[in-house]
Amino acid sequence: MLNPQLNKNGELQHLLTIEGLPPAVITNILDTASSFVGISDRDVKKVPLMRGKSVFNLFFENSTRTRTTFEIAAKRLSADVINLNISASSASKGESLLDTIDNLSAMHADMFVVRHSQSGAPYLIAKHLIDTKQGHVHVVNAGDGRHAHPTQGLLDMYTIRHYKKDFTNLTVAIVGDILHSRVARSDIHALTTLGVPEVRVIGPRTLLPSGLEQMGVRVFTDMNEGLKGVDVIIMLRLQNERMTGALLPSSQEFFKNYGLTQERLALAKPDAIVMHPGPMNRGVEIDSAVADGGQAVILPQVTFGIAVRMAVMSILAGN
Amino acid sequence: MLNPQLNKNGELQHLLTIEGLPPAVITNILDTASSFVGISDRDVKKVPLMRGKSVFNLFFENSTRTRTTFEIAAKRLSADVINLNISASSASKGESLLDTIDNLSAMHADMFVVRHSQSGAPYLIAKHLIDTKQGHVHVVNAGDGRHAHPTQGLLDMYTIRHYKKDFTNLTVAIVGDILHSRVARSDIHALTTLGVPEVRVIGPRTLLPSGLEQMGVRVFTDMNEGLKGVDVIIMLRLQNERMTGALLPSSQEFFKNYGLTQERLALAKPDAIVMHPGPMNRGVEIDSAVADGGQAVILPQVTFGIAVRMAVMSILAGN
Amino acid sequence: MLNPQLNKNGELQHLLTIEGLPPAVITNILDTASSFVGISDRDVKKVPLMRGKSVFNLFFENSTRTRTTFEIAAKRLSADVINLNISASSASKGESLLDTIDNLSAMHADMFVVRHSQSGAPYLIAKHLIDTKQGHVHVVNAGDGRHAHPTQGLLDMYTIRHYKKDFTNLTVAIVGDILHSRVARSDIHALTTLGVPEVRVIGPRTLLPSGLEQMGVRVFTDMNEGLKGVDVIIMLRLQNERMTGALLPSSQEFFKNYGLTQERLALAKPDAIVMHPGPMNRGVEIDSAVADGGQAVILPQVTFGIAVRMAVMSILAGN
Repeated sequence: MLNPQLNKNGELQHLLTIEGLPPAVITNILDTASSFVGISDRDVKKVPLMRGKSVFNLFFENSTRTRTTFEIAAKRLSADVINLNISASSASKGESLLDTIDNLSAMHADMFVVRHSQSGAPYLIAKHLIDTKQGHVHVVNAGDGRHAHPTQGLLDMYTIRHYKKDFTNLTVAIVGDILHSRVARSDIHALTTLGVPEVRVIGPRTLLPSGLEQMGVRVFTDMNEGLKGVDVIIMLRLQNERMTGALLPSSQEFFKNYGLTQERLALAKPDAIVMHPGPMNRGVEIDSAVADGGQAVILPQVTFGIAVRMAVMSILAGN
Repeated sequence: MLNPQLNKNGELQHLLTIEGLPPAVITNILDTASSFVGISDRDVKKVPLMRGKSVFNLFFENSTRTRTTFEIAAKRLSADVINLNISASSASKGESLLDTIDNLSAMHADMFVVRHSQSGAPYLIAKHLIDTKQGHVHVVNAGDGRHAHPTQGLLDMYTIRHYKKDFTNLTVAIVGDILHSRVARSDIHALTTLGVPEVRVIGPRTLLPSGLEQMGVRVFTDMNEGLKGVDVIIMLRLQNERMTGALLPSSQEFFKNYGLTQERLALAKPDAIVMHPGPMNRGVEIDSAVADGGQAVILPQVTFGIAVRMAVMSILAGN
Repeated sequence: MLNPQLNKNGELQHLLTIEGLPPAVITNILDTASSFVGISDRDVKKVPLMRGKSVFNLFFENSTRTRTTFEIAAKRLSADVINLNISASSASKGESLLDTIDNLSAMHADMFVVRHSQSGAPYLIAKHLIDTKQGHVHVVNAGDGRHAHPTQGLLDMYTIRHYKKDFTNLTVAIVGDILHSRVARSDIHALTTLGVPEVRVIGPRTLLPSGLEQMGVRVFTDMNEGLKGVDVIIMLRLQNERMTGALLPSSQEFFKNYGLTQERLALAKPDAIVMHPGPMNRGVEIDSAVADGGQAVILPQVTFGIAVRMAVMSILAGN
């Protein structure tokens, strides 16, 4: 089984990572999300597509922000939502991850939204469900270790398409702490899959993982160089909380070299948009004048994120 | 902008404090609450007034009791409810309060029920929403520091009106730990606004804030004097948990001087009602014989509290 | 008042313990549960039987697993569910248990699902509600100390009836840590009430409570002896977390003497079923080959558990 995400008809069965998703599947998610975004950008409709279905938010690590977005999306689809903080639960009684999954599945779960500190946990769960013929339960990866955060990647694609219409003539720069970012990884896969001709990655050597060139991106350590003429700037959060001693740059130092200011933004195309997955460190990776400025689309990203998660869940529930 | 609670048509836009609310607005809330109280006092109807709307309980300090009353009220209005304990969330990642608010607003929140240990936090949020043209999101103050707790004040007014019909000939005594009570402050404003001719405050000097006389109340340190001939007695909880060393009276001492016993209750009018915001310290500020006696309306207060919160939320959602 | 569980018409008013429940009441619960189990074993229907009703999960001790099963069951009945972790709430402000109950009841609770570390707490609450004429609020015991866990007992009966059709010709063995198990106690009462002619209890002397013979069961300390010819094997979880020093057997030692292996299972009837309340300690009380084998009905128990809890709640709400 090469790709547990797709069933034998090529339909989405689980959403684990953007890697390996055919462009048509991604486009279908974006089109479906578009149907959930109402007449104004700030109005998402409530629909009965998952009435009577049960969505379990399985959070093996805490993330109120991500949990909230999935909870809202599921409720807007009229699903019942059960929030489970697993670390405080059976895990402490020594039950194995897969026994927990089997038990919750036996309670007639229809969907598991999984957040885990270990890379691969959602894949393990999806594979187990397939192996044990529990194919009616769907898994959505809500972030696993440093590996993937596919719904964030998809909402970034939705946002870019919303403002730029077409992917095939864009230059996109991803800036900052690439090393600790699951968003960067998801975005690079999605942008490449959707045909963006030039993806740039900008950051200090210490925060750039190896192997970026093999992913088809251009690497810059000089931000001014990297921003020249780009259409889209995706700023990343400096993940101080994941760094230790020597690696950790000072905030002032980081801002000086990689903070997005209005001067630097002027190097990009005049109609370039500025994105950020949140939560922002103002004055560290982004200046408040930019964050609150006319080119920032950071809050629309949040709004589109609800619609994209509704799209993913309703597509999975329908397959 | 003098009063962010009201829009330019004088309609309620946010509920931050009873101070400054016109009598007509308060009366409208009480009348609406009355429509939610069913044929018996113990039967509140479920209504679809907020179907499809999202209420976010933003609790920056823990209060299961208050959170529960708002959660029930919102669900009885058919709203979707999202509970957020913010201290455990983005706050720890260094995101500012207003960035958190903008993010949640972008998720299409319709209402924020805000509990915060700092006075003024709900006002700050409401003002930000107005300043940034996010006027479709409404704020309800569920208690901010020692400042205000307006829905408690409103449910107290509902209770008094329910039993006494008319405010304009009443004498009301508020007894106990005035200093640490947001309820006292809200009640004094509401009673004065609704035309109660005599509001008394009774407590030891150490638990009386300055400036009470300027609020138009009569101050008593002798409880027996203060209770004479009153129609309504509002007992307050002795907030031991907010006091330190020297200020803190012993429970026995406090009960001896300011505990409501049946003997003391006999000093009030024969049909006086006894109220308490809960949770009660039996044997500290109130004797069990009074708490469970025929003049106590403490549990009806809880019931009316749900109806009043439903009224506030449905009025805000409709404006 | 001899049995607070039944009203004067003999209808179920509270579910506190299986002890004292007439067989007809138990059979009615199982029949009702059966109506909730859909055409396949894995499909439970959502029904509007409790629309507009409020179920409060009052968990005075943490149990995510049990809370989840009741939350799902209530939501499948279309009830509103409020989760309350009471230890973190008013309890810390010194409010008494019964004041908390009165307050929640005044918020128009229709049902309290109570989990408490102290035996008798749900009984105390039910008795108080009856004494204070709050008979419209129903109590379901979700586990109190070592005393009872009646819905687990009922789902075990459902499971046995599902696979064995008739109780009156069965031999049932309950194996392991009887001493710390509320499940064992509930099961023994239920099996006896439903007419099972032979109930066996198997375990080491140190984990067998006194008084078992008076309950009408046969006691075995030799597992091989006890399993001979049985129709149903109910394995119990070794509750390490409730044991201290001397009492606590080593896992290897326990498995050697009381672990259910395929060799031991072969001593039972060829069509014997294997049950476990979960969470399992694989390799301690049960071998993985048995847990995942063809005679195990451990996951169907979980599924039936939702239907049984739906049955109990809908019957209570209707009475």
